[in-house]
Amino acid sequence: MSEVYAARRARLREWCEAGGSEAALVSGGANVRYLVGGAPAGAALLLGPDRDVLVCASDPFADATGGSRPADDLPVLVLPTPDGDPAVAGAERAVEAGARSLAVEEHHLTVTRHRAVRSVAARARLNDLGTAVEQQRVIKDDEEISTLRIAAEIADQALGELLESILVGRTERHLALELERRLIDHGADGPAFATSVGAGPNSGRAGHVPTDRRVEEGDFLSVCLGALYRGYRSEIARTFVIGSSPADWQIELYDQVFAAQRAGREALAPGTAYRDVDRAARVVLEAAGHGERLGPRIGHGVGLENDEDPRLSPSAMGKLDACVPVTVDPGVHLPGRGGVRIDDTLVVRPEADGGPELLTITTKELLAL
Amino acid sequence: MSEVYAARRARLREWCEAGGSEAALVSGGANVRYLVGGAPAGAALLLGPDRDVLVCASDPFADATGGSRPADDLPVLVLPTPDGDPAVAGAERAVEAGARSLAVEEHHLTVTRHRAVRSVAARARLNDLGTAVEQQRVIKDDEEISTLRIAAEIADQALGELLESILVGRTERHLALELERRLIDHGADGPAFATSVGAGPNSGRAGHVPTDRRVEEGDFLSVCLGALYRGYRSEIARTFVIGSSPADWQIELYDQVFAAQRAGREALAPGTAYRDVDRAARVVLEAAGHGERLGPRIGHGVGLENDEDPRLSPSAMGKLDACVPVTVDPGVHLPGRGGVRIDDTLVVRPEADGGPELLTITTKELLAL
Repeated sequence: MSEVYAARRARLREWCEAGGSEAALVSGGANVRYLVGGAPAGAALLLGPDRDVLVCASDPFADATGGSRPADDLPVLVLPTPDGDPAVAGAERAVEAGARSLAVEEHHLTVTRHRAVRSVAARARLNDLGTAVEQQRVIKDDEEISTLRIAAEIADQALGELLESILVGRTERHLALELERRLIDHGADGPAFATSVGAGPNSGRAGHVPTDRRVEEGDFLSVCLGALYRGYRSEIARTFVIGSSPADWQIELYDQVFAAQRAGREALAPGTAYRDVDRAARVVLEAAGHGERLGPRIGHGVGLENDEDPRLSPSAMGKLDACVPVTVDPGVHLPGRGGVRIDDTLVVRPEADGGPELLTITTKELLAL
Repeated sequence: MSEVYAARRARLREWCEAGGSEAALVSGGANVRYLVGGAPAGAALLLGPDRDVLVCASDPFADATGGSRPADDLPVLVLPTPDGDPAVAGAERAVEAGARSLAVEEHHLTVTRHRAVRSVAARARLNDLGTAVEQQRVIKDDEEISTLRIAAEIADQALGELLESILVGRTERHLALELERRLIDHGADGPAFATSVGAGPNSGRAGHVPTDRRVEEGDFLSVCLGALYRGYRSEIARTFVIGSSPADWQIELYDQVFAAQRAGREALAPGTAYRDVDRAARVVLEAAGHGERLGPRIGHGVGLENDEDPRLSPSAMGKLDACVPVTVDPGVHLPGRGGVRIDDTLVVRPEADGGPELLTITTKELLAL
């Protein structure tokens, strides 16, 4: 696996050299992980000018149990005191090694840390690395997609088990905790993000924080969860009706959100503009009179972070590529009544390969539980 | 309660004016919450130059279920699109209102966001607010301490129940999840931080991420947890022995860490230097030959964040005040064997008031479970 990380670093190094930086300092957590395979929180990666060095505040090999080991072939510098800043130490090393220019992640470093970096690297020009690593992370390799496939399967399993249990009378909080326990039972390293469960008037809200509201007959119940597996994060949301027969407004709203989500999924193809995927789903819900109730985007990339590039929104610039995993997650919430959210993780594939690959396969029929 | 937040803002505003800033922009999440009572993630608070405004990317009153409502008397500006940056919009508002100088949190804003703030506030001088709000947060009022007392009681209850259950054969992960469920059962809004459970060779490690290691006879079992209650976060750690009789090395190590933790607790008094609290605990473990195995600090402040000022470390500058809640949490981990961590949340009180107030009251005897 070391070669994968070395190749990623080589690609970034080329990008930096083309931009006029002799060295680069990567400090964003997911970015460091992408380039080295695993590192303790707060670690910084120095690329060049001679060789790459991972700078850590604690020994990355001491914690044998965590998934935080860097690739074996990478030199590691452990700071003498855990209170030190690896980014500052990395900048110091870059200058000692002769770098006259150093690209840093200005969207990640705070002004205070940037000043500390500048003060030790006064001899070098500081450039902005921008989101170069984030952009490199957008298209996933087969290994990454396989890992995401497992993360999606775990979320499907946890959700499937929940559907077989008694739901009426239980609180949103307890259902969320149970889902997280089941994720771990099925092999997840943890939840991919805070599990959201919304019942009745809370259903359908994006990012709803579970409360003590109990599930009642006639409720919509919406659930959004994901599994963290070997660093990668899946995402799925489903909405159910509690009781034997959904009300007419529930069937209508469900059908509208389902149609929008399907339209979004069907728009996923290499070459499609991000905003056109958003548009495909959004027009369906606008036509149904829900335009004002929609969130800022209809989906987003997933990988080492739950919400990463690309963003599928009206103002997003760029086009989809093959092998980009994204969510399609429209939802509508009617204040006081509740709502519907339907969300899948998919991988963009050319039509010749069968079109978008659905990773989260739990049924999207409106189940009455 | 509105008056409490207004008084906090008035104090900060005085501090800014004394430092030559006509307005201040607060963007650190816990800092905003401290000054307004509650706000959606990403909100920014503009203090002055005329009146204070809370800037949010979403309506803070729309989410009736969250604990994120700002004080009623505070003007709120909701951005037209959720993708906007409240800090940038706040800076724009400050300049429109005539501020010629604006203090921002340089340790919180990234270089990229700071640049965006600067570009809309080109007419104003940008100053550094530094950690002014963090410093203001160090001494807690009675209401804050009462809230922390409940948060500590919840953690005690969750831990107490765990001790009554069967532990052998269960994994670290499952015990951690069960503790988090019990925290919520007892009224917590969530865990204060990721619950850590370490068994056998993993016991005693600071911040250990729970694994599939099962609890075995003869193990040390160390547990670190805390409750989040109305924004405030308690912390407690205990170490137990599994089985009928601890080994001699276990008794010896436990006694050493216990003596260090007691020395640290006993050093808590108004006027004591932070570093002297660290020293009091550290010398005990250095004398026992564990100097090399100690972490960078022996305790830290708790409140709206789990790890906030003051830091009780060898290099910390400053002295304790009354009404400052801190942890005292020394631990020693012997590679391959395991270790001990003992951690309490206490409030610094003068000797006339009975000395330090212990909030986490679970016994610190070495229990064999």
